[in-house]
Amino acid sequence: MKYVAMGHGAGGSLTDEIIGIARSAFASAYLNAGLDSAILPSEGERIAFTTDSFVVKPLFFPGGDIGKLAVCGTVNDLAVVGARPRFISCALILEEGLPFDELERILGSMGSAAAEAGVEVVTGDTKVVEKGRGDGIYINTSGIGFAPEGLDLSGADIEEGDALIVSGSLGDHAMTILGLREGLGFESALASDCAPLGGLVRALLDSGARVRFLRDLTRGGLAASLNELSELRGVSLEVDEEALPVKEQVRALSEILGIDVPSMANEGKIVAVVREGDADRALAAMHAHEYGRDAALVGRVVGCDAAPEPGHARVRIKTLSGALRILARPSGEKLPRIC
Amino acid sequence: MKYVAMGHGAGGSLTDEIIGIARSAFASAYLNAGLDSAILPSEGERIAFTTDSFVVKPLFFPGGDIGKLAVCGTVNDLAVVGARPRFISCALILEEGLPFDELERILGSMGSAAAEAGVEVVTGDTKVVEKGRGDGIYINTSGIGFAPEGLDLSGADIEEGDALIVSGSLGDHAMTILGLREGLGFESALASDCAPLGGLVRALLDSGARVRFLRDLTRGGLAASLNELSELRGVSLEVDEEALPVKEQVRALSEILGIDVPSMANEGKIVAVVREGDADRALAAMHAHEYGRDAALVGRVVGCDAAPEPGHARVRIKTLSGALRILARPSGEKLPRIC
Repeated sequence: MKYVAMGHGAGGSLTDEIIGIARSAFASAYLNAGLDSAILPSEGERIAFTTDSFVVKPLFFPGGDIGKLAVCGTVNDLAVVGARPRFISCALILEEGLPFDELERILGSMGSAAAEAGVEVVTGDTKVVEKGRGDGIYINTSGIGFAPEGLDLSGADIEEGDALIVSGSLGDHAMTILGLREGLGFESALASDCAPLGGLVRALLDSGARVRFLRDLTRGGLAASLNELSELRGVSLEVDEEALPVKEQVRALSEILGIDVPSMANEGKIVAVVREGDADRALAAMHAHEYGRDAALVGRVVGCDAAPEPGHARVRIKTLSGALRILARPSGEKLPRIC
Repeated sequence: MKYVAMGHGAGGSLTDEIIGIARSAFASAYLNAGLDSAILPSEGERIAFTTDSFVVKPLFFPGGDIGKLAVCGTVNDLAVVGARPRFISCALILEEGLPFDELERILGSMGSAAAEAGVEVVTGDTKVVEKGRGDGIYINTSGIGFAPEGLDLSGADIEEGDALIVSGSLGDHAMTILGLREGLGFESALASDCAPLGGLVRALLDSGARVRFLRDLTRGGLAASLNELSELRGVSLEVDEEALPVKEQVRALSEILGIDVPSMANEGKIVAVVREGDADRALAAMHAHEYGRDAALVGRVVGCDAAPEPGHARVRIKTLSGALRILARPSGEKLPRIC
């Protein structure tokens, strides 16, 4: 068995071994050009640019691994601003001692996910840190997409009455990871929802529904995304807990671990704010797509008052018991290294 | 004193504290827009895209720190393909326990370096790993630049006789880091050459000299860059050791540590291959620039035979004693975590 050594990160001939694996996994002419930067054709006036580092633990889990996650996470950040995801980078921080076969499996998984997402891995980097200064592998993916002129999904035109739609079951990714880590034995019943959502977003936009805002529901889950939207646009939102799509095992585990489902990370779900009268059309488009089959209307925009009374909670949830409580922005302590 | 905790990486309200520091350090309207991807104007038909993660140890050193290094490294990768560096990302992997004042100092340093380089930090990410799974801070910067049509600095048109020019003294960065790590007491006499080279490259290209190839001399130094060029283009190169600009203290330390100066990493130096008759013009343009004052002609392209006899060394160096020996591609074991 072969392992990563410190010299694999020093930019010399040993680093070439890593580059060789990457070139074979990614099969990109841009990557193979061997320049310090890839030189890419522009496909539009507006460039979407995003970055994410991935430190998920464990590296492999039902439904994916850190490599698939790294591709999907960045692709989804491009998709939710309305861009066509096109190019991504792959920067590795390897821990000394990582088995080469794990590295190959992870890069292979990135290659497959990139192919599904329709993006090309065009540039990369490899660093190695001493044993005990990393945790197997950390991956950064940055991405470039092209956004059509005039499309604004930042919520600037949100109106009272607009529908809140989520694209499917919540918490699958977080519960899969936490279940594995806590050794709760739920592994076989759960899988991460990790998926590239460019196609789902395109289907939604092509449906003709007026989409005001999109976000993928990663760290902090629906609770974080709605609170961010509320702060960004000064809107009040109300969610109906009963309407949230949640798998039975996820609900059970969330009760055991004491974590609210709306705060849990997903890696293949979005929230969309859609004009009130377009909700059915949007739902139909999402239901017809592989990654939106369980899409559901889960709430409403209930106010667009830019300056409500101080201390008034902007984001609230009607619980199963019928009470209306604050859906707070999670602080995050309970879900470390979920992506 | 305040320290980074696991919750600062979980995407909730604690993560906002980090984002707040970044927004204040980078002062970018794109970053402040708070979208999952920055939406940027395209400034050309051809986009240059690059990525680098930085794991340098120690984090602070004479001449810079990991933040300045992260900006300069990525800016320089864009500059050497002939692109105008414009936008960069900042993705942080923080180790639990990192003091906030170090984080603030590093992000402030990134902001200053970005301002000098004329780039804007437009998107970012924060993750936190447990104490003992990182080393204070790792930073990924990815970058976007715009490359003029028709400019090709990949060495495709190299000819026999072309001049090899380096932009200044070699090994300053590597020797500063290694001197610090080994506690050799040379700290005060040495400083990293870490610098953004977009301006120097522009001055060189504007001089009218025909530039065939450019590369910044980071990990693996001049030896790695020349071997890569040789493999990429099937050319043979000869370097004159006596002509290499090397500071006295660097030479002394390299002898103590047993590392060849041409294999040592730089963070503010480039090698240029220039048409034979244009060498003086290129040198004059570089000498007139702050970061090229000690530029020197250090060798020649001695052959463009695409298929030499097997085993023939492509890159050679005439040593101080007059012998011609192989300038091998360094394997890299001796210089871990230099950037």
